[in-house]
Amino acid sequence: MPTYNPPLRDMQFVLHELFNVVDELKMLPAHQDIDADTINAVLEEGGKFCSQVIAPLNLSGDSEGCQLNRDTHEVQTPKGFKEAYQQYVEGGWPALSCDPAYGGQGLPFTVNQFFYEMLNSANQAWTMYPGLSHGAYECLHAHGTDDQKKLYLPKLTTGEWTGTMCLTEPHCGTDLGMLRTKAEPQADGSYKITGQKIFISAGEHDFVENIVHLVLARLPDAPQGSKGISLFIVPKFKVNADGSIGERNAIFCSGLEHKMGIHGNSTCQMTLDGAVGTLVGQPHKGLQAMFVMMNAARLGVGNQSLGLTEVAYQNAVTYAKDRLQMRALSGPKAPDKPADPIIHHPDVRKMLLTARAFAEGARMLQAYTVLQLDKAFYSDDEDEKKDAEAELALLTPIIKAFITDNGWIATSHCLQVYGGHGYIHEWGMEQFVRDARINMIYEGTNTVQSLDLLGRKVLQNNGATLKKFGKKIAEFIEEEGTNEAMQEFVNPLADIGDKVTKLTQEIGMKAFANPDEVGAAAVDYLRVVGHLTFAYFFARAAKIALAQEASGDPFYRAKLATARFYFAKLLPETATLIRTARAGLKPLMEMDEALF
Amino acid sequence: MPTYNPPLRDMQFVLHELFNVVDELKMLPAHQDIDADTINAVLEEGGKFCSQVIAPLNLSGDSEGCQLNRDTHEVQTPKGFKEAYQQYVEGGWPALSCDPAYGGQGLPFTVNQFFYEMLNSANQAWTMYPGLSHGAYECLHAHGTDDQKKLYLPKLTTGEWTGTMCLTEPHCGTDLGMLRTKAEPQADGSYKITGQKIFISAGEHDFVENIVHLVLARLPDAPQGSKGISLFIVPKFKVNADGSIGERNAIFCSGLEHKMGIHGNSTCQMTLDGAVGTLVGQPHKGLQAMFVMMNAARLGVGNQSLGLTEVAYQNAVTYAKDRLQMRALSGPKAPDKPADPIIHHPDVRKMLLTARAFAEGARMLQAYTVLQLDKAFYSDDEDEKKDAEAELALLTPIIKAFITDNGWIATSHCLQVYGGHGYIHEWGMEQFVRDARINMIYEGTNTVQSLDLLGRKVLQNNGATLKKFGKKIAEFIEEEGTNEAMQEFVNPLADIGDKVTKLTQEIGMKAFANPDEVGAAAVDYLRVVGHLTFAYFFARAAKIALAQEASGDPFYRAKLATARFYFAKLLPETATLIRTARAGLKPLMEMDEALF
Repeated sequence: MPTYNPPLRDMQFVLHELFNVVDELKMLPAHQDIDADTINAVLEEGGKFCSQVIAPLNLSGDSEGCQLNRDTHEVQTPKGFKEAYQQYVEGGWPALSCDPAYGGQGLPFTVNQFFYEMLNSANQAWTMYPGLSHGAYECLHAHGTDDQKKLYLPKLTTGEWTGTMCLTEPHCGTDLGMLRTKAEPQADGSYKITGQKIFISAGEHDFVENIVHLVLARLPDAPQGSKGISLFIVPKFKVNADGSIGERNAIFCSGLEHKMGIHGNSTCQMTLDGAVGTLVGQPHKGLQAMFVMMNAARLGVGNQSLGLTEVAYQNAVTYAKDRLQMRALSGPKAPDKPADPIIHHPDVRKMLLTARAFAEGARMLQAYTVLQLDKAFYSDDEDEKKDAEAELALLTPIIKAFITDNGWIATSHCLQVYGGHGYIHEWGMEQFVRDARINMIYEGTNTVQSLDLLGRKVLQNNGATLKKFGKKIAEFIEEEGTNEAMQEFVNPLADIGDKVTKLTQEIGMKAFANPDEVGAAAVDYLRVVGHLTFAYFFARAAKIALAQEASGDPFYRAKLATARFYFAKLLPETATLIRTARAGLKPLMEMDEALF
Repeated sequence: MPTYNPPLRDMQFVLHELFNVVDELKMLPAHQDIDADTINAVLEEGGKFCSQVIAPLNLSGDSEGCQLNRDTHEVQTPKGFKEAYQQYVEGGWPALSCDPAYGGQGLPFTVNQFFYEMLNSANQAWTMYPGLSHGAYECLHAHGTDDQKKLYLPKLTTGEWTGTMCLTEPHCGTDLGMLRTKAEPQADGSYKITGQKIFISAGEHDFVENIVHLVLARLPDAPQGSKGISLFIVPKFKVNADGSIGERNAIFCSGLEHKMGIHGNSTCQMTLDGAVGTLVGQPHKGLQAMFVMMNAARLGVGNQSLGLTEVAYQNAVTYAKDRLQMRALSGPKAPDKPADPIIHHPDVRKMLLTARAFAEGARMLQAYTVLQLDKAFYSDDEDEKKDAEAELALLTPIIKAFITDNGWIATSHCLQVYGGHGYIHEWGMEQFVRDARINMIYEGTNTVQSLDLLGRKVLQNNGATLKKFGKKIAEFIEEEGTNEAMQEFVNPLADIGDKVTKLTQEIGMKAFANPDEVGAAAVDYLRVVGHLTFAYFFARAAKIALAQEASGDPFYRAKLATARFYFAKLLPETATLIRTARAGLKPLMEMDEALF
């Protein structure tokens, strides 16, 4: 069975040495009292919970899966899941970054994000229960009425209740404008909602006494398409005005999906049969309201694959040090043993270092981005807020798509390190691969993310936000331009920066002639920009590591070696991506539909 | 549930138009009577069997898996598997390419390979039962004594018995030199064999009355390492001299592996407790004998991923034409429908065309290579035989690694086309991905294949075989050099050819200084050479398609479009691979083992 050690040292490096988050957070009125010790202590305690309570349930949760009782419509989660959730609630973990006005601890999102990385490493399927709940909390916090907030937020904050997001229907996922679930206004101001939802994560389970569903549906007078969708709160049990639980509402789990992975999470078909709900936000503006939740969820999905990459890496390293097989081509490395540990074989190292670099790169990108989320949410400076919002919007699709694609590659490499044993369930590696696969799909497929990045976030404002981010990179390059030791990092960084500028302009020009050129280039483009961000952060990390080299602390030697590996072996992927992006639309459209 | 349509038209193109196999095969004495009609009729009938009998059992076989009765040590296969095998035997399919001297039909390996592509598309897990059996047949045919052949080959030919290969042990797979299973000589010339084997595909099942295990074990006087391994026949039931079944032998299935995929195949732990066996070939030369089987198996594994790529592609196309979601960025393509079929979205096409090009490229490479197998086996011209053997040896690791890595990419893309539905078992796509994953591991991991290619097949003879293959490419380029319409194919082909030459020389030089440089570059190198072969075959296919363009047959338009897609969007992967291969060993070795 896999094990998990929270990577606290690297987290501290990213938080305190690379991004100096305490100083940044202290500028925000809500966080003026934050300090490094608090952050470190929370992560250390959180790490214990993840490695000791949640991680041991991952493999068994995958084997057991969830069971639906078709008579009661209740779902039984795998053994130990419910008890672990009780510990989670008792530990106050759901409240970590919630609003103190509703009982939260008010810690920065940055801290919560790092805690979630560990939860995801330990058990992605389990973590989706509180994870979805947190998304529902954020959506209601942003768009609910005072009454709705008072009724629901305290229970979501303590974790006594959990939440879901009910979007997808059998005929529409990406294209929510086509959804058919109906909401009929009632005399008392409530709505009766009827329809069929699928793929509802944590839609029904046995953790809590009530589940707060956020449901997208269409009012009778709704315009067609995505501008006619409204958002409703539909609790499993109706909630009385005093907050007590009322009668069962007509929203039921009517089936569980049989999935490739995340078996421990209940992915539900939900049937609404005149279920009573209340409107959240304005009529027909439900999709915008839901996007608060979706954007947070997209960061969360990237974080899931970061977690999986880290835990897969850790276990593959252990195996590679332990497993004896063949001699190194350059001669025995462990002459006292019948064969060399496979970590001495160059390609095994390449697979391990790929996973390591993807994890460390993702951790830096996540931290940088979620710090913008803290600024966007908490800053009292309008300019800073706007800048942070724009950068957050730019980086969110990159986090979702780049990190999850990398996670798929990395977990598969880590499986491969195990040889045939990697294919066997008991070793746990194949589960990481299966779990990682969903992250490329849900909360907007990675193709949708790439269209969001290139079409909306870059081309729609003539690349202004990207240029702003690029300016930070240019300043760093300028600063380090005379530092000889940094040339190996700064030169390729400058090169990829120039190439991104040129590629962006080229696609922008082509898109004038045919907007489908955006669709043809977007996926490659997103990965190129993803590499630009990784190259930037690895160069910054290398600068610190070089400065600390004399300390003799092996952490910095490892950081330098990982950065060098990244520049030598991973960044060159951009050579292909730029070529295929430039090859454009024609090779994709030449074949008639009928000839496929 | 997925469906499968045998791609007979493309098979005929590859066989008859591209490689003109009938003329080639007619030169071989054993096949002088072969004709296209026979080949086409066999494939058409075989295709029906695959799509109508085997394919419908794929999804259910995955759900049910195999069950071991721990008291009887018998394994129950999924519902319908056994009956399908009976039909397979009744149809005479096991005998297709077997030696007429033992009851076989004596058809070329080329025909059998195409038939197996269809079996693999239909149901990889089921196909492994007869597939392993065929490997055992070939090994015994090459290395068995006359008595052994008479006793076993007729039953393996009819399919009344099946075979296995028992190599792996818990502590060794790649490094078989470490294996511990012991064989003790008995007074009657037989051996008593004791040990523990794992990962034995089709090791125990309910299809047949007897299973012929080929077991690697160590004699008492065996030298250490891989030069002390001998090969034995160990039947499940002892076989009397007259061919009748005797008493149960002491080889038992002691456990079934829980795997990521190929659930319908029984992957067994086998315990030998003084099981009686007879020696095959010379003492201590078992590994060489087994390599006959392994090389055939490696072609077979490439063929498995070709089959999966084809069937995943077919189903993803159907879904992409049917599923309505969003409008094309360039405006509605199906204005009468609520949204456009997703096949109009450029990135969906890119995913589909990637799978299509990988399937068509693999089919060409497989056909070309297995034709060399026919020549190597059947030619009466010693020079032709040697050339064919060398080319077969060169291309086998490319087929194994390149096609299976591509199959992983392609099946994952096809899953992605389905969005969230791709993650759901009932659609069948996630099974293709899970099944495809093992192909990168078994019969020698893809890293082992790349070391075999670069270290043994290329550098050990100073690239002589590769140069010979390169000469064919150069001749084709020369021929087409003045054909303007072919420039778009021939120029990039010439370019990648030059780059392979240069890269091979560079790595060869570096390997003098440090043999580990081979291990650092091998995986990237294999993919570059794989692309060289695909580029060559797609260019040749394009030449034919261009010549036939005037015919108006849409098949040739599609072939041209696929070739163009390949050159524009897939071949550029070499830009990255060459860079990372050249980056060499240093970035992999900089980190101390302890720092991982």
